[in-house]
Amino acid sequence: AIIYCEGAFNTTNGKTAHGLVRFTERYKVMAVIDSRYTGKDAGEVLDQKENGILIFATVQAAYNYSVNKGIIPQYFVIGLAPDGGRLDPSARNDIFNAFELGMNVDSGLHDFISDDPEFFNAARDNKVTIRDIRKTPTRDKLHFFSGKIEEVNCLKIALLGTDSAIGKRTSAWILVHGLRKGGYKAQLIGTGQTAWMQGAKYGIIMDSLINDFVSGEIEHAIHEAWKNENPDVIVIEGQGSLLNPAYPGGFEILAAGRPDYIVLQHAPKRMEYDGFPGYALHPLEKQIEALEIISGKKVIAITINHENMSDFMIRKEAAEIERETGIPAMDILKFGPEDLLKVLVPLIRKGNENQ
Amino acid sequence: AIIYCEGAFNTTNGKTAHGLVRFTERYKVMAVIDSRYTGKDAGEVLDQKENGILIFATVQAAYNYSVNKGIIPQYFVIGLAPDGGRLDPSARNDIFNAFELGMNVDSGLHDFISDDPEFFNAARDNKVTIRDIRKTPTRDKLHFFSGKIEEVNCLKIALLGTDSAIGKRTSAWILVHGLRKGGYKAQLIGTGQTAWMQGAKYGIIMDSLINDFVSGEIEHAIHEAWKNENPDVIVIEGQGSLLNPAYPGGFEILAAGRPDYIVLQHAPKRMEYDGFPGYALHPLEKQIEALEIISGKKVIAITINHENMSDFMIRKEAAEIERETGIPAMDILKFGPEDLLKVLVPLIRKGNENQ
Repeated sequence: AIIYCEGAFNTTNGKTAHGLVRFTERYKVMAVIDSRYTGKDAGEVLDQKENGILIFATVQAAYNYSVNKGIIPQYFVIGLAPDGGRLDPSARNDIFNAFELGMNVDSGLHDFISDDPEFFNAARDNKVTIRDIRKTPTRDKLHFFSGKIEEVNCLKIALLGTDSAIGKRTSAWILVHGLRKGGYKAQLIGTGQTAWMQGAKYGIIMDSLINDFVSGEIEHAIHEAWKNENPDVIVIEGQGSLLNPAYPGGFEILAAGRPDYIVLQHAPKRMEYDGFPGYALHPLEKQIEALEIISGKKVIAITINHENMSDFMIRKEAAEIERETGIPAMDILKFGPEDLLKVLVPLIRKGNENQ
Repeated sequence: AIIYCEGAFNTTNGKTAHGLVRFTERYKVMAVIDSRYTGKDAGEVLDQKENGILIFATVQAAYNYSVNKGIIPQYFVIGLAPDGGRLDPSARNDIFNAFELGMNVDSGLHDFISDDPEFFNAARDNKVTIRDIRKTPTRDKLHFFSGKIEEVNCLKIALLGTDSAIGKRTSAWILVHGLRKGGYKAQLIGTGQTAWMQGAKYGIIMDSLINDFVSGEIEHAIHEAWKNENPDVIVIEGQGSLLNPAYPGGFEILAAGRPDYIVLQHAPKRMEYDGFPGYALHPLEKQIEALEIISGKKVIAITINHENMSDFMIRKEAAEIERETGIPAMDILKFGPEDLLKVLVPLIRKGNENQ
């Protein structure tokens, strides 16, 4: 696949592209398009760690590169998530170009590519398909809450955050992969379109659901993962944040998903809510208090997003958070999941003994 | 209109019917159908206060009664809200009967009447219309949150509850009508289908919205009411309850609606969450704490739902709540809005002075 992220790579609006550049089981990512970083390595730009995915200025250049590497790109994935989810008109030509080159288009935008007659016709003429993964499923495909979540007796962890676009999904994958490496069966429950694009086997696209079905669909996805995979641990990707000034999120995950514990992702140097300049982020202690009173469950670890922080600052900040909250804090994005596994693994064993 | 509520009147599943029997500006309600209460007065059954709306066992009997009173019924309103919102198959014949009698059908059910080919054909053959008011609006008709809520400078009150089906909407109307009687311009923002059926001029049907648009639609409805009506007070109908074991509600109202104060409806004798046997209602103090920490706003009054309470118990319980929480408590359903107005009116005046 080629990931389209013109003008947005390495910004919070590029988070779908970032997820795909870091990890996906759904595609083999060959290249990214963002003319601002032409010629750079996408991993290097994003995480200061080369991953062999190059950035190009044009669709044609990215396509040629991939073909020269022996792989004809099958998918052109819209890796932009602009505020509100609507596509910039200037990107239209690039999408037509992708159709002409024979690529199928996958999009998580609110403006559905397939609803646009020009796009629809172009896809048909070039014999390629469009998948608008945010399309709201019809009611007959959706589930109401039934209470079957009570049957799910493996350890359930909700990976929530103190803000949106703060790395919840990435941390959730790191945790799942760390658990698997440690010999535990772990399943991710994806809750957004990026997790779907990354190949999460179980999950929902929460934003796109009819509101009344959000709780039932969360319950159903968790129950399916438990029933089919018999995992030791289920990790639920959070959405938004509880105290967001306009888009509060995570409530249904706590109520209907009934996690045993919460892991909370936090960026100590972020001062304002993402997308809401002037709205100061609530203090970490207050966010923990709100989560615990709403859910009746404990925050057992704080995972740090190290944006605008040196390695020295990360360790200092982790120690300070532990001192102030009494909760273990660690940066699994930078240093891997080991410190978090030390907190969680004893809980898995305990859970297994109780069964 | 004739209200269809077979088997559910005077139960929590009949709340749409109850709302319409108590008050609607959209219809003239002539009769209710529930064979369990044949011959009774609907107001008497519901509120121990006759209101001249009679209950019948069959569609034909209700229709004949109305015609004899000189009014040919135009609307057959489905006043059932079963758990999950889906229609009992045994009610189908009654709906066909309504079509045959020339009535248009309004429904707030999840199973859309108009999507059923038999109903669709029956309506067409009888030249009547079907309005499925829960149909999810398409994205092009919906608004994202924009921040324009900050312009709305009148007093905004959210009327939330400690449970669902606890009387939030009825109390919100009583408050709005009390304010109007007191000479203030007041607007209700409806958030459910019953408020729509009662004729609320501004509002949304929250359950049916695409999840990502809930916040923006709340903001938009409040902003429209403010812009067009220049009210002194806006009262926002709550949905669900914050700590519901599966369907948490009200958090988008708090975040995107940004009320100045919260009025909290509570039923002191309700022990378990509606629809969730075995799940104890969280204590009132804990619910207040959760609301205040999430919203940063104060609960300024507790309105009592007097189910299973004598008049003596209501006054005793109100005094006890005031003593325990320090917040004024009153039963406006039974004794009218005066005590609540005493709390709110000084805040309106203060608001006006500040403008």
